[in-house]
Amino acid sequence: MKILHTTPAADGFFMPAEFEEHDGCFMIWPERADSWQYGGIAAKKAFAKVAMAIAKSEEVTMLASAAEYDTARRMLPEYIRVVEMSTDDAWARDCAPTFVKNKEGEVRGIDWYFNAWGGLVDGLYFPWDKDNKVARKVCDLERLDCYDARDFVLEGGSIHSDGEGTVMVTEACLLSKGRNPDMTKDEIEEKLKQYLGAKKVIWLERGIYNDETNEHVDNICAFVKPGEVVLAWTDDEEDPQYELSKSCYDILSQETDACGRKIVIHKLPLPKPICMQKEECEGLAWMEDEPTRTDGERLAASYVNFYISNGAIVMPSFGDPADHAAAEILGELFPEREIIPISARDILIGGGNIHCITQQLPKAVR
Amino acid sequence: MKILHTTPAADGFFMPAEFEEHDGCFMIWPERADSWQYGGIAAKKAFAKVAMAIAKSEEVTMLASAAEYDTARRMLPEYIRVVEMSTDDAWARDCAPTFVKNKEGEVRGIDWYFNAWGGLVDGLYFPWDKDNKVARKVCDLERLDCYDARDFVLEGGSIHSDGEGTVMVTEACLLSKGRNPDMTKDEIEEKLKQYLGAKKVIWLERGIYNDETNEHVDNICAFVKPGEVVLAWTDDEEDPQYELSKSCYDILSQETDACGRKIVIHKLPLPKPICMQKEECEGLAWMEDEPTRTDGERLAASYVNFYISNGAIVMPSFGDPADHAAAEILGELFPEREIIPISARDILIGGGNIHCITQQLPKAVR
Repeated sequence: MKILHTTPAADGFFMPAEFEEHDGCFMIWPERADSWQYGGIAAKKAFAKVAMAIAKSEEVTMLASAAEYDTARRMLPEYIRVVEMSTDDAWARDCAPTFVKNKEGEVRGIDWYFNAWGGLVDGLYFPWDKDNKVARKVCDLERLDCYDARDFVLEGGSIHSDGEGTVMVTEACLLSKGRNPDMTKDEIEEKLKQYLGAKKVIWLERGIYNDETNEHVDNICAFVKPGEVVLAWTDDEEDPQYELSKSCYDILSQETDACGRKIVIHKLPLPKPICMQKEECEGLAWMEDEPTRTDGERLAASYVNFYISNGAIVMPSFGDPADHAAAEILGELFPEREIIPISARDILIGGGNIHCITQQLPKAVR
Repeated sequence: MKILHTTPAADGFFMPAEFEEHDGCFMIWPERADSWQYGGIAAKKAFAKVAMAIAKSEEVTMLASAAEYDTARRMLPEYIRVVEMSTDDAWARDCAPTFVKNKEGEVRGIDWYFNAWGGLVDGLYFPWDKDNKVARKVCDLERLDCYDARDFVLEGGSIHSDGEGTVMVTEACLLSKGRNPDMTKDEIEEKLKQYLGAKKVIWLERGIYNDETNEHVDNICAFVKPGEVVLAWTDDEEDPQYELSKSCYDILSQETDACGRKIVIHKLPLPKPICMQKEECEGLAWMEDEPTRTDGERLAASYVNFYISNGAIVMPSFGDPADHAAAEILGELFPEREIIPISARDILIGGGNIHCITQQLPKAVR
């Protein structure tokens, strides 16, 4: 693995869209006792279901710690590749590499600095040294060269690319005090353009209410094709989420993408508020100086947090009446893909959802 | 990775010779404090030199623990692939998979049971659970199917194959009480034939004097081509090694291989006895219930413990007058390969040498 000190844009590389073809997907096996209740058994089962759904159409590599290797290997079918790797938690979207490719189909990784969503300001755990090595380790594993972007704090969940020069982010996250407080918005935008090969950055203001990632874009809005997005939506003006989704809608309605297209917005309904229960809170270990879930706390549930595999939309379901409507909308938007809903409460409790626990490897020409 | 419960021979697979073409080589980064003196710094440097010598002509993957990842990555050049893996020590030959292939060029691994060279009878450390998972983990890493041979204790260093149906072992090792005490010699031979696709097993009696692996064959005798071996040799009849080498010579002189060829024996001189020094012993951590090096203890030094890479013979040197003669002999036997001697005392102290710390991956047709 070569560590590259140039930038992807300068080398002709850009971030493809998730709906383009993949060579595979990385996930991380959950075990952190203060993230996953009751020994993470229910979370492990949910992760395994996600892995199996994705593996129907692309290779899945599950990264598992030495301590959890036997359990992961036993709970996953043989066709899931299990590779040992130590991590601090299980969010492959945020600590695995963001992959870029060039027109010849060469793929490389980007190693952003990962600081657990806010470092010592408002990060969610400490330390984060193991997570912060995942990107380099995955690149070495896959024999891919890796861009050194360790002077810039970013997570994969905070960016979406349409693969044609447009990147979408939220201000709440990218301008947060715990990430790159010494950079201006313009400097951050320039960094995104250099590393993602983008021509235009669409800045939404906010994400999903109470999303502890400082409101990652991947929980509220996602490209379904160039020029078209799904947006998490509620019609309930009393819901604190209403203003947040409305703000995104207003911005997107005014925006054009890098190719000059107006953005087509598909509203994806939100489930009714989903909250932590006392028994779930009691199943979590306690870590000093860390935020801890409390009984009744509203979780950042959203159907937008789906994963686009080569053959499917692997989407969260919540046992909510909106499950069906969301699946129908996604089915219409992705007519050539199977819609696979996975009951996701046990992932959501950890603080994210299916998109957060996956990272796609774009198809390379070798 | 599929775990296969058939046998390689039944599936048309066999163990190719080391001198056939490789796709790469696996090594394990040394860190065990009771094996590698003074924090293993000198050993790490020697391992890095071996890796670099091999990487001149084939890919090297260095397996390193999470704790040592940064150090390994810093001490190794970028062209060495570093992959996280937990192990109990650094002997890739013995705990990484033995690879077999078929005539179509498909490669698979074998997962023998590894018990640290003798388990609770005369094994060299306890526990050995991490080492015992390396074979499966490497197969999963490389997307290779893996034969389950976990009902049989074997290390890669205790077998040599000529790739044409002949396998060479020592009785001292394979019939030792700490490995498969409930199997007869015939049963063990049958197992070797089934798993290595061999037609004939040549049983040497003994290996190198004081070799704590119970005298692995790879320290005393190696195929240089079908029908030809190098044999570690001393002319000093007072040396306890003399009888051991003489026994091998006599057996090999009488033997034919699976193809009916008489064996051509090339004597490779041994260095003068190499012994532990007090200061080296003091640099080792102490582990309860384990054999520990003592001042003046003779080490199992042998030039036969070389690695055959695609382009080189990476061989140990000891600062002994025989270094030159051994290199010359190997140069004549491998005229198309570069001879690369590496000063190996810092590896030898750990209990083995260059062949012991490497495991070749045969070239696959994909």
